[in-house]
Amino acid sequence: MIKVAIVGTGTVSKHLQQEFAATQVVEVTAVLQSRDETRSDSLKELEANKQDKRADMYIIAVSDDAIAKVSEQFSNTEKLVVHTSGSVAMHVLPTGIRRGVFYPLQTFSKDRAVDFQAVPICVEAENKEDLVLLKRLGAAVSQTVYEISSEQRKSLHLGAVFVNNFTNHMYQIGHGICEQNDVPFDILKPLIKETSAKIDSLEPLKAQTGPAKRGDEKTIENQLGQLTNVTHKEVYRILTKSIKETYGKEL
Amino acid sequence: MIKVAIVGTGTVSKHLQQEFAATQVVEVTAVLQSRDETRSDSLKELEANKQDKRADMYIIAVSDDAIAKVSEQFSNTEKLVVHTSGSVAMHVLPTGIRRGVFYPLQTFSKDRAVDFQAVPICVEAENKEDLVLLKRLGAAVSQTVYEISSEQRKSLHLGAVFVNNFTNHMYQIGHGICEQNDVPFDILKPLIKETSAKIDSLEPLKAQTGPAKRGDEKTIENQLGQLTNVTHKEVYRILTKSIKETYGKEL
Repeated sequence: MIKVAIVGTGTVSKHLQQEFAATQVVEVTAVLQSRDETRSDSLKELEANKQDKRADMYIIAVSDDAIAKVSEQFSNTEKLVVHTSGSVAMHVLPTGIRRGVFYPLQTFSKDRAVDFQAVPICVEAENKEDLVLLKRLGAAVSQTVYEISSEQRKSLHLGAVFVNNFTNHMYQIGHGICEQNDVPFDILKPLIKETSAKIDSLEPLKAQTGPAKRGDEKTIENQLGQLTNVTHKEVYRILTKSIKETYGKEL
Repeated sequence: MIKVAIVGTGTVSKHLQQEFAATQVVEVTAVLQSRDETRSDSLKELEANKQDKRADMYIIAVSDDAIAKVSEQFSNTEKLVVHTSGSVAMHVLPTGIRRGVFYPLQTFSKDRAVDFQAVPICVEAENKEDLVLLKRLGAAVSQTVYEISSEQRKSLHLGAVFVNNFTNHMYQIGHGICEQNDVPFDILKPLIKETSAKIDSLEPLKAQTGPAKRGDEKTIENQLGQLTNVTHKEVYRILTKSIKETYGKEL
């Protein structure tokens, strides 16, 4: 049995609690509150609870900015201490202790179930035994566990901003255009699904279509004229430019 | 039986031929070649074939730019003439004839099968009987048929550029970042799937996450520093600005 204490009570913490509870090999010995790391009562509670001797490791699942501060509480522990962030380096955790990262690469929403078995877990640790432990922990809840350095994780997180955050913004602009012109956004949903399904069989470089790829200036000019939001016009322009550059078109 | 002659031999034509052939209610009476509308032999062939009296309608499935030119060949027909484009208005077809549009809103690739039943068909026609005919034709191959005006179709097509073409470019930038930093793009695929699956339960405005949404300037600056491609930096900047504006953040 791997015994973990989870620090934090946000969305990632809740998903981890739930997933670990459903396994036969992981036990959550404690969930330590540290929602607001500036509140002294919350820190005191953390102080008391971290004496919990049962846990093999502490999983710090708090917001990126709070990781350094919250983890200071664990600067004397002999247990493994990991955080769950995509963008924070491992060395932000206190020096001199056993450090690691347990990063589930997925977008978690409060109200939406996630198939955790399909979520890639990126693990990192300073020593070999801890890496083995984190791989076992990952394998208990997911089919794919990757050993990823802090440097690689930073790149993955940047990639994730493009394929997730920025893509969702594309959906949002599309949604707005539909609303403004009184057509149901539902009509675009099968296209959205097909665009993402395609990545399994066709790499994005080969899947590109559309006026920018074709260099179809007439359509580009017409569509720029259709857009009423100045920033969305800029978005259209720079993405068109970026696609053209990708395919070596003259600008 | 609805009898159609299809003009053009590209990807959309091939998909339509295949889908119509699989139904019990549509017969493709002819496929007329017009791949290069400037070649006189191709036009002559078209001229000869368009005398085909069996078809109830001509479906002009050629590139956007060629629609006007190719459809001139049908300026004297008594049959219904439709094109299949998202961005071309119905009135581009010759005046004085029965005109319409049969636009399957999906991204078609040569080498990839598409579940046509899930593809929304947007139809438009000048007279009521033709609209009924196009709706029947659509229902023969798809579960969803929408009556959409030329103006609305233009908006849908613009929306499609954002949710499909630009989204695929986001995947492509993400793919490049992974390659450059020696991490497998596969790690991002479950995230891509979840981002698109979310639109069924959560509208994009509510699904937005990430540094731009949070106004997390530290991460934004770090990530801009990570990008080596100048145009991709611009893309990151303008999309961050656009997301901030959407959520009313100070710039």
